[in-house]
Amino acid sequence: MSTFTHLIRFLAKDGQIYYGDAILPTGVSDISKATQAKVIQGEIFGQHQVTDQVADVRMLLAPLARRDIKTVRCLGLNYEQHAKESNLPIPKYPVLFFKPITAIAGPTDDIPVAAMAQEGEGLDYECELVIVIGKEARNVSESKALEYVLGYAVGNDVSHRDWQIKRGGGQWGLGKGFDGWAPFGPGIVSSKVIPDPNALHISTILNGKTVQSSSTKDMIFGVAKTIAFLSQGTTLLPGDLIFTGTPQGVGMGRKPNLWLKDGDQVEVTLEGVGSCKNRVVYDKPASKL
Amino acid sequence: MSTFTHLIRFLAKDGQIYYGDAILPTGVSDISKATQAKVIQGEIFGQHQVTDQVADVRMLLAPLARRDIKTVRCLGLNYEQHAKESNLPIPKYPVLFFKPITAIAGPTDDIPVAAMAQEGEGLDYECELVIVIGKEARNVSESKALEYVLGYAVGNDVSHRDWQIKRGGGQWGLGKGFDGWAPFGPGIVSSKVIPDPNALHISTILNGKTVQSSSTKDMIFGVAKTIAFLSQGTTLLPGDLIFTGTPQGVGMGRKPNLWLKDGDQVEVTLEGVGSCKNRVVYDKPASKL
Repeated sequence: MSTFTHLIRFLAKDGQIYYGDAILPTGVSDISKATQAKVIQGEIFGQHQVTDQVADVRMLLAPLARRDIKTVRCLGLNYEQHAKESNLPIPKYPVLFFKPITAIAGPTDDIPVAAMAQEGEGLDYECELVIVIGKEARNVSESKALEYVLGYAVGNDVSHRDWQIKRGGGQWGLGKGFDGWAPFGPGIVSSKVIPDPNALHISTILNGKTVQSSSTKDMIFGVAKTIAFLSQGTTLLPGDLIFTGTPQGVGMGRKPNLWLKDGDQVEVTLEGVGSCKNRVVYDKPASKL
Repeated sequence: MSTFTHLIRFLAKDGQIYYGDAILPTGVSDISKATQAKVIQGEIFGQHQVTDQVADVRMLLAPLARRDIKTVRCLGLNYEQHAKESNLPIPKYPVLFFKPITAIAGPTDDIPVAAMAQEGEGLDYECELVIVIGKEARNVSESKALEYVLGYAVGNDVSHRDWQIKRGGGQWGLGKGFDGWAPFGPGIVSSKVIPDPNALHISTILNGKTVQSSSTKDMIFGVAKTIAFLSQGTTLLPGDLIFTGTPQGVGMGRKPNLWLKDGDQVEVTLEGVGSCKNRVVYDKPASKL
């Protein structure tokens, strides 16, 4: 479906923001290493083309502009080992919640922690495979579901456990939905390049130490099953994102708990895609680029 | 802030879709009675003007186009009497969940019930005051919150109780987020016209019989408090909608339960705004207008 293999959105050295197809050195798959890209002209979910114009990357941005993202869906408890560490049963159906689009941030943006999110405790990380929907999907079957995928990215489903679980009447969206709490990227790797998204290594490194390390094959509802389920009676739109849940190793699952604090560096990595490396910064407005 | 008093979006007799400022006969406040409007040119959340061009209304549509709506937020348990009928304590903080924008529908659209939502039981209605955000709001105080409101509409937070409560891991969004399950309208009444949104009669009529009848003054978190709370650390964008919860009388709160069924007519009404009248239709794709 896509005309690119490694979609990025970036601030170029000429001061402009472009969509581009990242030019990666042979043997490199981590998009965050891209220093150049072929500029894409047109609408990502409409008519567009990868041109021969090469631009130098100054900074990678969230791989989709806010206007190109519609709804941000997230699954909870979608890895077997994570359900176990949470002392919760394996869910029978996908557990769905949403984030507002203002939560979206880029692969190197700071994670702003507003005053309200500095209350209580429980600031946590969650590395996740992110599905990017490429065309309208409604009532699709599991066997055809992957045809609706534009590509994959990695994201961090940043969470405040007190607001998520204890204070929001049990609804998770508020405590996971603050500005900038869904960094994703570093780019979107076309599903042509990743034919099987259910066997990718995924990890989180916190201040240089690995805290999550698993494989998307531990997912309870794989990519095709997730899309098929979510599309029943609900139209998934081009530009919809689906964060697919996190493996074991989150701060909440540890004894003692391991909460993020001001200045922490948190890096989430997905095999074949690359890394987002974001710094926790108390009380700073989110990036708007 | 707004240049109009009664914003509508409509299919005109000339076959075009317009934004317009509804022309209402003297003494009429129900926008669903509008047969003519002054056409609005430009971007609703940007440069625009109410022109002198009068168009005839053939059908009212959702008062904002999908491209003009960003995030759809909803509060649960926000009326005292409804919390009581649900046998749940009065929440200390607003209980927030989200719907995807594909749930948005117009004031006369059918409510499609897909195969998945025909499983189990618990198809229910919820009349709600809908806040439409008019300008970017972050960390606003309660005393200034109303300055960020474009206007008010009435909506129906259509819900499937089994999917909402029993099957989705306790997360409400899935069972309330099917295509077309957030009809709203019939238009947006400017906050200039409704200076106090916390004293409006609100009701639901099901097949000609009143099943909900209350006032927005029973809201636990009023309009200003809701906006102030939701804007802490989270930027509310122009075109964000906030469904503010429903009063007592929902089908789930009745003994025996009163569930919607195929062919039912459900009408939600807000004083000073008007009505949305939608028919429950099993297994039909949602309107895309």
